[in-house]
Amino acid sequence: MGQVKASEAFTVVAEGSITTPKGFKAGGLHCGLKKTDRHDLGAIVCEVPAAAAGVYTLNQFQAAPIKVTQDSIGTEGKLRAVIVNSGNANAVTGKQGEADAFEMRSRFAERIGVPAAHVAVASTGVIGELLKMDKVRGGIDALPEKLDGSREGADGFCQAILTTDLVQKSVCVAVEIDGRTIHIAGAAKGSGMIHPNMATMLGFVTTDAAIGSEALQGVLRQATDMTFNMITVDGDTSTNDMLVAMASGLAGNKELTAAHPDWAKFADAFRYVCEVLAKAIARDGEGATKLVEVRIRGAESVEAARAIAKTVIGSSLVKSAMFGADANWGRIIAAVGRSGQPVNVDTVDVRIGDIATLEQSRPVPFDEDAALAYLKGDTVVIDVDLHMGESEAVAWGCDLTYDYVRINAAYRT
Amino acid sequence: MGQVKASEAFTVVAEGSITTPKGFKAGGLHCGLKKTDRHDLGAIVCEVPAAAAGVYTLNQFQAAPIKVTQDSIGTEGKLRAVIVNSGNANAVTGKQGEADAFEMRSRFAERIGVPAAHVAVASTGVIGELLKMDKVRGGIDALPEKLDGSREGADGFCQAILTTDLVQKSVCVAVEIDGRTIHIAGAAKGSGMIHPNMATMLGFVTTDAAIGSEALQGVLRQATDMTFNMITVDGDTSTNDMLVAMASGLAGNKELTAAHPDWAKFADAFRYVCEVLAKAIARDGEGATKLVEVRIRGAESVEAARAIAKTVIGSSLVKSAMFGADANWGRIIAAVGRSGQPVNVDTVDVRIGDIATLEQSRPVPFDEDAALAYLKGDTVVIDVDLHMGESEAVAWGCDLTYDYVRINAAYRT
Repeated sequence: MGQVKASEAFTVVAEGSITTPKGFKAGGLHCGLKKTDRHDLGAIVCEVPAAAAGVYTLNQFQAAPIKVTQDSIGTEGKLRAVIVNSGNANAVTGKQGEADAFEMRSRFAERIGVPAAHVAVASTGVIGELLKMDKVRGGIDALPEKLDGSREGADGFCQAILTTDLVQKSVCVAVEIDGRTIHIAGAAKGSGMIHPNMATMLGFVTTDAAIGSEALQGVLRQATDMTFNMITVDGDTSTNDMLVAMASGLAGNKELTAAHPDWAKFADAFRYVCEVLAKAIARDGEGATKLVEVRIRGAESVEAARAIAKTVIGSSLVKSAMFGADANWGRIIAAVGRSGQPVNVDTVDVRIGDIATLEQSRPVPFDEDAALAYLKGDTVVIDVDLHMGESEAVAWGCDLTYDYVRINAAYRT
Repeated sequence: MGQVKASEAFTVVAEGSITTPKGFKAGGLHCGLKKTDRHDLGAIVCEVPAAAAGVYTLNQFQAAPIKVTQDSIGTEGKLRAVIVNSGNANAVTGKQGEADAFEMRSRFAERIGVPAAHVAVASTGVIGELLKMDKVRGGIDALPEKLDGSREGADGFCQAILTTDLVQKSVCVAVEIDGRTIHIAGAAKGSGMIHPNMATMLGFVTTDAAIGSEALQGVLRQATDMTFNMITVDGDTSTNDMLVAMASGLAGNKELTAAHPDWAKFADAFRYVCEVLAKAIARDGEGATKLVEVRIRGAESVEAARAIAKTVIGSSLVKSAMFGADANWGRIIAAVGRSGQPVNVDTVDVRIGDIATLEQSRPVPFDEDAALAYLKGDTVVIDVDLHMGESEAVAWGCDLTYDYVRINAAYRT
């Protein structure tokens, strides 16, 4: 397998996937929820009870599968599997929707011979329609045969979780702990309704590290705050967002806790996996032509830096300017100024790429042609230094394009 | 003059304008700030010192003219004039920008023979470029000749404050107080960067009512909270938003205070003027094809109702669905659910026009063709009843369209 060095602490496994960590199989198939013949049902299965953790949407209208997954992970912090459908969010579907989500759990648990409470359920797609359970049941019955531990199994799963996504989102890293090679891998889907505090986003992290479910929950929460909660596509938070992590323990390291000498190394590799997926979601935002990264430096606190970064990345005017390759720093500072966070209006620097456009809140003449060339690239970095303190944050998003409007003007119909 | 009945309390003066209230003249001209030959400098002048009040953007990067206007109104609560340019926001222009805004004030004050502190200044347009003061000076010197008390003068002013607006926004009402006919009129510009708490919005209200500046400030603040602060085009709050009211007192009524028997009638007429302008701004949002009105009922508090209404009206997904004439109530309740306000997830009704789509949080089958026909109209009302309390609020916005993206991808270049 090709290995790309990502830092001192870990390496990226270029051909790795969610089935690279020991103990995991995955797969997907088309059961009939999507109108096309694309996969719409998939699962990840672990051969042993994996330590499990989850974070969920803050939208008050939580979809039925969220309740099921919370119940499963809440029971004993263990999962053997997660089953996921796309094409239908099973959200705002009332008691029947809940019954359907619980049936997905129990039927799949039975097919693979594990306790129902060891299965998590996730759904993504249209809100407010009942699942076609005849299709789902047939799919669940056929799914175990599709599971395998190869890249093909992982690809099948990754296809099954997509909706308006254009590309699969997957990453795998290797990190040495206690002389063992531990793998951490992830898969995600995103596209619309993407905004901090979880979005139309499903994410799944597998690892063969030995770690307890509480420690896993801690590292997942910390990584989420720095990655998935720092992306936005359109400011909308969906009813179905869910991120689930499963740790098989089969790598044979000593159990990871905050006291383990390699804890920081593990947490950093875990964060990296989440960051790659989060950025991939932002880059593949509905209609997006580029990834936009906003770095806020010199803030009074991390909370302020995060809030300002999210305000800038979420601004429709900034996003439209990025689409138009327009170095419109005025809109950037207008967003900084309405963030509700402490800002010294006389000390702000704004750089677009390495082009200084504002220094100490004064416009700087810059080469418009160079700015245009930079902004036409597929990644744009906006760097704002407030010169007030030492705190910083990074947020990711995308440009606002004709295609975003086209996709969302006609999604349901 | 044609009169349209708007309520028991006041009548709309169809052909009225900001120069209809006694004592006011207005005018506009092209001084050279806009590349086209459209008007870019205008003024409203009152023949007596008018009681004055203002509300301003909450963006921390306030444009230079905001400081000037606050200084003028703060001096003794009186104005003789407001001078406005478009094409350049005079924002983030540092000490020179401030000096330029003060020079606009003093030069125009001198030309019309009033104290400098009786002149307010407003600017709208591109951020971060210094005003071409040679053009502005020439314009100021020529402006007094353009002022007149007819509809033509008002039209000249209304043209001068537009940027990407497509239509002029103007309204006039008449209300009987103390046996006198009082007129209240307004003019506004909007378009992009429109979001609650003041936007790229300039608004001017003239009245010949006799009212003190403190009482006028109170009625202006109250009306703003229910109207201008309840509209959004794109969630961005500009550096230049300003709403200024001037009362000449020439109608001859007894001074209006909260103790006056007709206070409520006056406040209602004043609110109506602001509401007409706010809705006109929303309808003419950049790229908009329709006005969207969101009514939240049955909320626990007015604050909650307002916050939920603003979340729904600001959702890019809801806005895109409105452009696509898609009765996508799922996005509406997803926005309700992420508003951060108290919501009972089991008791929500959603109507689109008079079509029920969700009752007690359960989807209701509806006639898709009827919904499509309704949504293709130029005004869409979304009505959400939370069934939790007695409070309600209304917010206004527009759809998100290809043209919004087109306009904002190429604004500066």
